[in-house]
Amino acid sequence: MRVLAFLDGTLADPDAAHIRVDDLGLLRGDGIFETVLVADGVPRELGPHLDRLARSAAMLDLPEPDRAAWERVVRLVLDSWSGSAEFALKLVYTRGVEGDPASAPTAFALGMEIDEKVRRARAEGVAVVTLDRGIDPDYTERAPWLLLGAKSLSYAVNMAAVREAARRGADDVVFTAPGGTVLEGPTSNVIVARGRTLYTPPPSLGILKGTTQGSVFRGAERAGWATKVEPLEVADLRSADGLFLASSVRKLTRVHTLDGQPLPDSSAIHAELAEAYEAEYAG
Amino acid sequence: MRVLAFLDGTLADPDAAHIRVDDLGLLRGDGIFETVLVADGVPRELGPHLDRLARSAAMLDLPEPDRAAWERVVRLVLDSWSGSAEFALKLVYTRGVEGDPASAPTAFALGMEIDEKVRRARAEGVAVVTLDRGIDPDYTERAPWLLLGAKSLSYAVNMAAVREAARRGADDVVFTAPGGTVLEGPTSNVIVARGRTLYTPPPSLGILKGTTQGSVFRGAERAGWATKVEPLEVADLRSADGLFLASSVRKLTRVHTLDGQPLPDSSAIHAELAEAYEAEYAG
Repeated sequence: MRVLAFLDGTLADPDAAHIRVDDLGLLRGDGIFETVLVADGVPRELGPHLDRLARSAAMLDLPEPDRAAWERVVRLVLDSWSGSAEFALKLVYTRGVEGDPASAPTAFALGMEIDEKVRRARAEGVAVVTLDRGIDPDYTERAPWLLLGAKSLSYAVNMAAVREAARRGADDVVFTAPGGTVLEGPTSNVIVARGRTLYTPPPSLGILKGTTQGSVFRGAERAGWATKVEPLEVADLRSADGLFLASSVRKLTRVHTLDGQPLPDSSAIHAELAEAYEAEYAG
Repeated sequence: MRVLAFLDGTLADPDAAHIRVDDLGLLRGDGIFETVLVADGVPRELGPHLDRLARSAAMLDLPEPDRAAWERVVRLVLDSWSGSAEFALKLVYTRGVEGDPASAPTAFALGMEIDEKVRRARAEGVAVVTLDRGIDPDYTERAPWLLLGAKSLSYAVNMAAVREAARRGADDVVFTAPGGTVLEGPTSNVIVARGRTLYTPPPSLGILKGTTQGSVFRGAERAGWATKVEPLEVADLRSADGLFLASSVRKLTRVHTLDGQPLPDSSAIHAELAEAYEAEYAG
């Protein structure tokens, strides 16, 4: 099941072609996106997702997204959905057609079933490798053209990193900075558990502010955990009681293997944190 | 005037929609491209462009491009073109539709008129700023997932750099490495003239091997110039007799201003090199 709606409120056939070949989202990866988890009719963390969409738009000098219109189109997809209780909702916003200064951005919301691989990762955890992203975090502020921390459509490197992980027998990646500082996954944030404290790296390192990570932290705090947003080194991942990747669709995923080395069993911590996260959306 | 043809030999209306919203070229910038200059019916440097397309495909683990099919589709666009004597021909090759392992790549050739801004840059030269790309060239070999030297569709940073140049009152960019080594432009290669020698940085720095740069070098050699492919520093750009950007559509463009400072007048050198370049395609 798939549901496609454009920002103007038009529902459309997701199996038909709707994008011109000269859309800058296609020709230049010049646009932004968000992926929202919808569960039992609720688009989780929609506010933080739309906040981040607005931040990404500002970083790419795109017109400010019309928040009310995005909220309406999300509602339209939800109302039209008749598939599984949980699904992924992608929001895409490109610079529009090349060479036409009057061209409006291309903007749509696409509801999609969650694939089996994601469900397996949720249940069984994942093996992860660390890969160097090659850019020092201190570029974040002083080199805004590098778009560090923007969720752009230019994800070829993120996808190549996941293929590199597969070549190494792993499922996913934790990007590191040249000095070894932990950054983020290609499509996730990193969370570490140590004692009764959760840690995640700060967005000032040039990474995305995590929507699911934020929700896990809120839930964990409610359940008595302390939380800290501070830089981590790879050694901190190895010595942690639990290492997790947080992403909207995969929720909180347990990492059981890091760079080929098994990590301590964090199933119990994972279960507790997953419950705290779900409690954020209960009743 | 625009002409669109898909790799299977189908001509299509370039103003209609042909791409699905879930094409990975759009959702992930996951694909590659080339831009070929066609002049008087000849696709310039088509061989080197198709060589580079194949290299980019290998770096992104895309299926090897069908060279004969690309040559045929280029011929088809050329035969269908009735616009200006010079035009830009874009070749685009994406990973195809998301979530469908049997999905074929999306592949098309799009002929487009050259816009006025390009013609002005060719005639008047450009002001350029240097911007740090943030990645040390020594990552090229050891971090293939960074896709350095692949011409991917993920060009959001390249486009952001050009907007940053505009904010600084300039037209274009020369990317530098963290240590100050000269790399390339967002859509061009750098050529420096000093005495009767031309210089360009080596692809081993994680930059594209220039098709137009190659042609300029061949032409210049024929005209008695020496050529060297070796690393350059920003100081070499300032002290050069001439600084140029080479790109298919803009050909050899003279840089008259670097980081706000006027450069020595290189009009005569530019005229000589431009002639040597054109002579490569004469009669």
